[in-house]
Amino acid sequence: MSNIRKDPLSGRWVVIAENRDKRPIEFERAAVRRSSMRCPFCVGNEQDTPTAIANYQLSGAKDSADWQVRVVPNKYPAFNGATDVGRSADGAYESMHSVGSHEVIIESPKHYSSVTDLTREEGALVFSVYRDRLLDQSKSQNVSYALVFKNSGPAAGASLEHLHSQLIATPFLPTDVQLEIDNSSRFYERENECLLCTILNREIENKERIVAETNSFVALCPFASRFSHEVWILPREHKNRFETTGEDQLEELSDLVLDTIERLERALERPSYNWLLHNSPFDINTSDHYHWHIEVFPRNSVVAGYELGSGCYINPTPPELAADKLRSVVCTKYTDFPA
Amino acid sequence: MSNIRKDPLSGRWVVIAENRDKRPIEFERAAVRRSSMRCPFCVGNEQDTPTAIANYQLSGAKDSADWQVRVVPNKYPAFNGATDVGRSADGAYESMHSVGSHEVIIESPKHYSSVTDLTREEGALVFSVYRDRLLDQSKSQNVSYALVFKNSGPAAGASLEHLHSQLIATPFLPTDVQLEIDNSSRFYERENECLLCTILNREIENKERIVAETNSFVALCPFASRFSHEVWILPREHKNRFETTGEDQLEELSDLVLDTIERLERALERPSYNWLLHNSPFDINTSDHYHWHIEVFPRNSVVAGYELGSGCYINPTPPELAADKLRSVVCTKYTDFPA
Repeated sequence: MSNIRKDPLSGRWVVIAENRDKRPIEFERAAVRRSSMRCPFCVGNEQDTPTAIANYQLSGAKDSADWQVRVVPNKYPAFNGATDVGRSADGAYESMHSVGSHEVIIESPKHYSSVTDLTREEGALVFSVYRDRLLDQSKSQNVSYALVFKNSGPAAGASLEHLHSQLIATPFLPTDVQLEIDNSSRFYERENECLLCTILNREIENKERIVAETNSFVALCPFASRFSHEVWILPREHKNRFETTGEDQLEELSDLVLDTIERLERALERPSYNWLLHNSPFDINTSDHYHWHIEVFPRNSVVAGYELGSGCYINPTPPELAADKLRSVVCTKYTDFPA
Repeated sequence: MSNIRKDPLSGRWVVIAENRDKRPIEFERAAVRRSSMRCPFCVGNEQDTPTAIANYQLSGAKDSADWQVRVVPNKYPAFNGATDVGRSADGAYESMHSVGSHEVIIESPKHYSSVTDLTREEGALVFSVYRDRLLDQSKSQNVSYALVFKNSGPAAGASLEHLHSQLIATPFLPTDVQLEIDNSSRFYERENECLLCTILNREIENKERIVAETNSFVALCPFASRFSHEVWILPREHKNRFETTGEDQLEELSDLVLDTIERLERALERPSYNWLLHNSPFDINTSDHYHWHIEVFPRNSVVAGYELGSGCYINPTPPELAADKLRSVVCTKYTDFPA
């Protein structure tokens, strides 16, 4: 099933190379151990992090010490607190002041290392907090885009084990989101249809790359997956803004995302992974053509010279085989929908 | 010195965040060990790799058993040997047959793990082989682009320790090279100047991001470096094709690249790194606006969710500080130019 495929959303070429993962790896990677450092994210250690931006309880009440999810400024932020964008061009060089927000979303008071340790209710709260933080950022001055993402495990870039996500809000629109918007917009002009709606309809009909479905969401391995066992989760309904998702749908979304992670953890022996939420920028109207979605990447290989030099990827697992494998994993914790 | 910068060549935003590398890392990464597997790249083990595409001796003679550099097809190639591109579009999905070449350039008969184990003459031969392989690929049918790159060390994606580079030739122009060409072309239309010539002149005059210079080449930390201690090596003369580099200049280039690696190895305790050669595509005329160059990325951090979701990077070392540190390393093996 080896061939070369173009992801219509990013415009990126991917080489599907079924035999590539059979190559011998000479380097023996010893198991990564957790150090004995005190976890700054555990309940009781709140003084190890900056003052919370918000605390969330399962009941939905805020600002209580008895938190289930806690949002704090990153203690080592990417930005230095500048408030004036100060965009300037000096010849070929453009720059801005270090304006932006860098938040940490601590997803449990307990020292859990997998989201599949969360109950359905606890999981749903995490996605509700994502919505809340994005709504808050959308009202900030000088923020064009906010990316919510998770680094889970050391091979995915996590520096701490305790369950958490991050939000980075910037005065610029990130390059890769711009590419997705440009490609979606061009498709809409040509076809008068949303690109991801078109893809969703086709995948639902075709079935071979579907991992799981709920009433409102679909999990699938994308046609030009850049990573082995990559999964995207999309709303069936055309929506360009994640923030418009209702409470019931957030529960359903959380169920499907956590079910996907449970499948990946069982199929691939608890891989490190990233997930990220591709949403619309705050300052551009994308309502016709952009469709928010979540991308999940297991990180069983290192992003190497070819990928960094080309922006293209070599994926040793055809997405059809990945979907088949993930579909066949029996998971019951988050689902009452058939496997 | 924290701010946000746009790389004019790729169009990618980079957040320079000086304090970010002070954050605690909870995961203790045990030392990576080399396994006891027999090295397929060592002299005497030639039967462990496919038949050589070419052998190179230091004298320049070819096809001798007494090789210094040996080029073999990758035993686990990204492509399956298809010869017909068979480009097709099926709705939103574009694909091609698995057409392409994947070569391994074994850079020494001895089991060296660092290019700084090579003599000046042995180093120069490696770059001469790069030129030879690119000239050969430029004559192939169905090849639009060939990327030469090196993965050195496990954190850079190397699967084998023995000194080697790779070449991947594809029927498509990789996304990131397309972006560089588009940005260079737009700059040329606006300014009637090559973008990288303009940048080079400015950096040479300004000095603060220069690492080292020779008569014909310059090593510098780019204004919007995406990785800590990233270095680019560029020819002073405007040239869009690496293949046109003369023999004397290849020696000088090799000296400067290997000197740069020696600096990185001393300054950063032998990091894993990638290098890659950004050259012109074979089937597009870029002679006015594109300028070939080599990019070197030390890999002391993992490409994580923010980078994979945004295409943008957070770099904890301002390139001015990186250049200052690398300039101050005393290296003598490959240079008779002042530090």
